[in-house]
Amino acid sequence: MPVKLTAPQASSLLPVRGVQLGFAEAHVRKPNRKDVLVMTLAEGSRVAGVFTLNQFCAAPVILCKDFLAQDFNKKQGIRALLINTGCANAGTGEDGLNRARQSCEALALQLNKSKLLNLQANQVLPFSTGVILEPLPVDKVIAGLPAAIENLKEDNWLNAAEAIMTTDIVAKGTSRRITLGGKQITITGISKGSGMIHPNMATMLGYIATDAAVSQGALESIIHYAVNKSFNCITVDGDTSTNDSLILIATNQAGNTEIIENCADFITLRDALTDVAIELAQAIVRDGEGATKFMTVSVEGGRDEVECRKVAYAIAHSPLIKTAFFASDPNLGRILAAIGYAGVDSLDVNALKLYLGDVLVAENGGRAVAYLEEQGSAVMKEPEILVRVDLARGNAECTVWTCDFSYDYVKINADYRS
Amino acid sequence: MPVKLTAPQASSLLPVRGVQLGFAEAHVRKPNRKDVLVMTLAEGSRVAGVFTLNQFCAAPVILCKDFLAQDFNKKQGIRALLINTGCANAGTGEDGLNRARQSCEALALQLNKSKLLNLQANQVLPFSTGVILEPLPVDKVIAGLPAAIENLKEDNWLNAAEAIMTTDIVAKGTSRRITLGGKQITITGISKGSGMIHPNMATMLGYIATDAAVSQGALESIIHYAVNKSFNCITVDGDTSTNDSLILIATNQAGNTEIIENCADFITLRDALTDVAIELAQAIVRDGEGATKFMTVSVEGGRDEVECRKVAYAIAHSPLIKTAFFASDPNLGRILAAIGYAGVDSLDVNALKLYLGDVLVAENGGRAVAYLEEQGSAVMKEPEILVRVDLARGNAECTVWTCDFSYDYVKINADYRS
Repeated sequence: MPVKLTAPQASSLLPVRGVQLGFAEAHVRKPNRKDVLVMTLAEGSRVAGVFTLNQFCAAPVILCKDFLAQDFNKKQGIRALLINTGCANAGTGEDGLNRARQSCEALALQLNKSKLLNLQANQVLPFSTGVILEPLPVDKVIAGLPAAIENLKEDNWLNAAEAIMTTDIVAKGTSRRITLGGKQITITGISKGSGMIHPNMATMLGYIATDAAVSQGALESIIHYAVNKSFNCITVDGDTSTNDSLILIATNQAGNTEIIENCADFITLRDALTDVAIELAQAIVRDGEGATKFMTVSVEGGRDEVECRKVAYAIAHSPLIKTAFFASDPNLGRILAAIGYAGVDSLDVNALKLYLGDVLVAENGGRAVAYLEEQGSAVMKEPEILVRVDLARGNAECTVWTCDFSYDYVKINADYRS
Repeated sequence: MPVKLTAPQASSLLPVRGVQLGFAEAHVRKPNRKDVLVMTLAEGSRVAGVFTLNQFCAAPVILCKDFLAQDFNKKQGIRALLINTGCANAGTGEDGLNRARQSCEALALQLNKSKLLNLQANQVLPFSTGVILEPLPVDKVIAGLPAAIENLKEDNWLNAAEAIMTTDIVAKGTSRRITLGGKQITITGISKGSGMIHPNMATMLGYIATDAAVSQGALESIIHYAVNKSFNCITVDGDTSTNDSLILIATNQAGNTEIIENCADFITLRDALTDVAIELAQAIVRDGEGATKFMTVSVEGGRDEVECRKVAYAIAHSPLIKTAFFASDPNLGRILAAIGYAGVDSLDVNALKLYLGDVLVAENGGRAVAYLEEQGSAVMKEPEILVRVDLARGNAECTVWTCDFSYDYVKINADYRS
């Protein structure tokens, strides 16, 4: 069960002026579930995206990158997003690209017909998530479009969050309100993801929208800053998916002076968007497949962030550590072992310190003299646990979030396609 | 249950002249199990070792490396090995080193008293395996020594293999007979290991002995060759332990002309020893914690071995792939995803091919046209499965062995200390 995570109330997900959302039950893979989502964006919206680094990236990821880079869209801009679950359209070769293109063309055609928007197929960003290596049932996706277009509205974020879920148990979304230059700005984001979760990035889709006016440069700068502090700091199982995509949208509807990089309001907006990204990223870990514990792994005192990250991920990826946390067993030697194999050069194992919560567990190369097993056991029983390592050789630090490894993880992934 | 692995018959593990083995039930952690092993080596034996690269390496590993490097031992040589299970004596700092030294001193003293050998403490190599971060109960180990010395004999390899088991279900050992220069040569090896298994090296102990006369240089050369073809090609869970040790012993009792590097018989001996190492390494995977499937991951057509290894381990480490194999579910897109995130530069995903057994599964960036799900399902039902990737960009290759990821893996590691 998700760790301290409940679905948001519909009313807590605030509409963002200029973004409409509509869903359909298109039976892409399973009946009776929302599995197609359409988002339309007001004219003048700006869009930035970051995508998986997996070289077997999915057909829709290839198209998204292409469309976002087109000169045409530097002027005309992205006007719609089309998302399906049930099939990742990854490992599908040229045929997969054709099917993704067909779905974009169909959406553009139907939106034009409906007179809601006037756009071309390359102004539609496609996204897919689900099983890899299977052809996208594009006819089913297209057949779902009229229903999705029919229910397009601004106040539809919770339905949208539900429409992009796969093995997620809980819908994920959050909102913020800030003021920039005297204007009220709304930020709302949704995400999905539960397994095949690893930085660069997770098998996740994330969409964050604001009605602020933001320059394209500022938007790109913010998305990279935010992703490094959020989605690139989580892991469930260490598998980097083929479909990860995070999209940041600014609809320019709030009437504020356009935010450019490094202006005074830039930091305010960047931090608010990053805060949303962190909450959405942590929600993915809290809803990690089979998760019963939420672990924060914080490494400090490193020479640089890279070595802190190596140690944090060695701990966060270790199945031995994750199963011990599942069992609430303070078998903390496994953490020392992970620190030892993390690949940090000339590490002084006698200088570093390991803490579980506030409890000093190890120093001088071994168990801390004052450490009592009962202390470790008490921390281990909590649903949220902090593992802290002080490498004692510098000032760099890094924090990652992960969950434990349970019977249900195996069950979910052994049964995934059935 | 172990995959196609049964314990050897006592009679199939051939005595090696010059090696005596004795065991004890010393109740290091649990009662009524063999948990202390003593091996004595004839005068003139040569010994080589390779050890974990984990920087939190255990106290006995530090002592082994120290003793093997001492000038004193270049002449006098290692004469005994002392192995305990139940406690890894890792993450134990200076106190751990003292306890390991005490155990060596006690064994030397008792062997001297018994008039069986005449040796110093630094001619005893210590080994420990078990829980990390707990003090070695050295009094219990020492109290077990008289019984172990009492039953020292050459024909004791199966008892020895049993005495070093931890979460292993099956004792692991094998023998070979070869002829070198007209002399019959015996090779016998034993190993233990089941979890925290990863190259460089596994949480494994391995001891391989031959009665051949072998120069120290040739012995060092052979152990590095053999370990790269065997123990460095396996993974169960990707965790590199603190205690891994492989020891190669040549007792110089067979009457053959000393084998030096690159003489004609060198290759014969090297290949026979490597063959033993591969069988012992594969046995560890077959007995991997919770294993129900034995997977060979073979990557060919790479530009160099390094990139083949990256791809092979990305597949062999992926919990998503390992759980799919547990379920006998040909969810093979997960393998493409792993290839894609393995970190191979400018990989041409359209050129590579993926095979399951003999079945071509993917080519041209997607599912092979002729591939049928039934074919994948049929291969998946076998207890031994070959995953083959042709990167189609060179002539390098690499093979690694791993097992699937089951409920029992979680159970074993969640309950390990209880």
